[in-house]
Amino acid sequence: MEDRIRLEHGSGGVLSRELIEQVIYPVLKNAAYPSLTDGTDIRCSVSMCMSTDTYVVDPVFFPGGDIGKLAVFGTCNDLAVSGARPEYLSLGFVLEEGFLLEEFSRVLDSIAKAAAEAAVAVVTGDTKVVPAGKGGGIYINSTGIGVKRFTGNLDPAEFVTGDEVILSGPLGAHGIAVLGARERLPVGDAILSDCANLYPLCEELFSFGSALKFMRDATRGGLAAVLNEIVAAGSSGILVREADIPVNRDVAAAADILGLNTLEVANEGVFIAVVAPEITSDALKRLSKHAEGRSAAAIGTVVKEPAGKVIMETRIGGRRIVDLPRGLLLPRIC
Amino acid sequence: MEDRIRLEHGSGGVLSRELIEQVIYPVLKNAAYPSLTDGTDIRCSVSMCMSTDTYVVDPVFFPGGDIGKLAVFGTCNDLAVSGARPEYLSLGFVLEEGFLLEEFSRVLDSIAKAAAEAAVAVVTGDTKVVPAGKGGGIYINSTGIGVKRFTGNLDPAEFVTGDEVILSGPLGAHGIAVLGARERLPVGDAILSDCANLYPLCEELFSFGSALKFMRDATRGGLAAVLNEIVAAGSSGILVREADIPVNRDVAAAADILGLNTLEVANEGVFIAVVAPEITSDALKRLSKHAEGRSAAAIGTVVKEPAGKVIMETRIGGRRIVDLPRGLLLPRIC
Repeated sequence: MEDRIRLEHGSGGVLSRELIEQVIYPVLKNAAYPSLTDGTDIRCSVSMCMSTDTYVVDPVFFPGGDIGKLAVFGTCNDLAVSGARPEYLSLGFVLEEGFLLEEFSRVLDSIAKAAAEAAVAVVTGDTKVVPAGKGGGIYINSTGIGVKRFTGNLDPAEFVTGDEVILSGPLGAHGIAVLGARERLPVGDAILSDCANLYPLCEELFSFGSALKFMRDATRGGLAAVLNEIVAAGSSGILVREADIPVNRDVAAAADILGLNTLEVANEGVFIAVVAPEITSDALKRLSKHAEGRSAAAIGTVVKEPAGKVIMETRIGGRRIVDLPRGLLLPRIC
Repeated sequence: MEDRIRLEHGSGGVLSRELIEQVIYPVLKNAAYPSLTDGTDIRCSVSMCMSTDTYVVDPVFFPGGDIGKLAVFGTCNDLAVSGARPEYLSLGFVLEEGFLLEEFSRVLDSIAKAAAEAAVAVVTGDTKVVPAGKGGGIYINSTGIGVKRFTGNLDPAEFVTGDEVILSGPLGAHGIAVLGARERLPVGDAILSDCANLYPLCEELFSFGSALKFMRDATRGGLAAVLNEIVAAGSSGILVREADIPVNRDVAAAADILGLNTLEVANEGVFIAVVAPEITSDALKRLSKHAEGRSAAAIGTVVKEPAGKVIMETRIGGRRIVDLPRGLLLPRIC
């Protein structure tokens, strides 16, 4: 096996087979993916959930993670916030001619490790190779299937005034870590992506039944995008308290220097939940048992007016609108 | 809405939302995909099948189809040859900065039309934008879930001497159509890709039970790749008869001029089945009721020796080995 991807690795011939049989499949093989066929049988229950995401992050490796870990946890997290326990994953690789086999293998190892941690079985895959200059080293689509464990309604239209907004962890680490690595900014390797498996945290909230009203991970567009999506879908507004939003000090400092708003920076290990106020303290207690939930906090409240808007009470007591992010935030952040 | 994809269309902000809500979702919305959430609930039965494929075809539009039609039928066909009726589809788009919105919309329309024809519901999706020079206009991952309708064993290890190899249609049209369009070769618009939904044909064979022993669509690497995969997985050989392999005359002529071997050219509407000899004529009769199966033919036989090899009996009575394709066939053919 040579050390770089060649176009022939995508041709369906001898080299394609070698790449799949010698490089990819040995790393990803598991009991639910017993052989290389066009499709794999999976055991389902009646109520499942399906989610897909393509990862185009640049650079492929960044402090705290890489595109492989991101492709597993990112899609599993979308299932988790939909109330489903991730079960099966498909992987679609688009490799660019010239990509180093050694780097591909590191990504595959990272996928295998993350899949084991998330207890999800990779069951089928596909590998394409595009000519140099037509890709980004490696892009990965992962599509996940999960079993519904929470069957309540997660619909912002059902929010009532006084419902509380919980943030599961500190903002901004993923975006700053990736941007720092890409632009070789002096943010240091101290800031690691928060890329993590959120299912255990989400599961803590399932037993609250109808008092759990909404969950969403705050990826592209950050907290600002999620809160604006919520208010756009419902008939209420949201008031958030800047002083209560957890942000790590080094992330805040780096964001300041770079002129980035931590509310808009992508996260890969943080979700927003909206809950009935009577369960807030219990929910925070449960989340804080987990490493990723140690800084979980109630950061805001559902309000009647102004409907459809996200308002922030600033540290100095003022109020400002938090808009849906406009323009170019950080391309290829996930 | 401007007329070209901008990086901001992938940022998670206002333009992302506009692209999804105004361009993508209106075309793909259906009863099983009632709202834009991170994951969509799907109804499953116990025995399902999952398959994934990423499409990087160049050019995006070609005689007889486009990347959208390919992304739907290609993945549905992988489920069909696995014995499953396609039910749900996810779509992951990687758009390149500068790609024309008008072309994207044509692809979306084509997806919607193909999904309706295949009776498959698009239930979730994702859209990423990469900078100019980091993509190929548009790449599409589609991942499909199907209900198992044929639960027999489709394992080449179970073949016995005398089993027959059926080809469902004429070879080579997809590869020649795409190559002709890409290289502006004078093959003319008369050669259309064979891109088609194969489930109705596959379903015809399910009722044969254990006499149906194997199915596989002949995409990248063509017939040569599939037959070699079969013999590599079993303990028999295959003898194919060149004179019995259907190839349309204009495709054969174009392949000759281009120096291509039709056995190795990609197809998107042709599959190989291996069946017990007593059902061959019945199977061919059933396939030929469908437009795509009009030229279905028995093209070869499972033989004891030489095990692990595909041998072709040529038109002039000689014999030669059909190898797994080597080297670069046609990059970005699907």
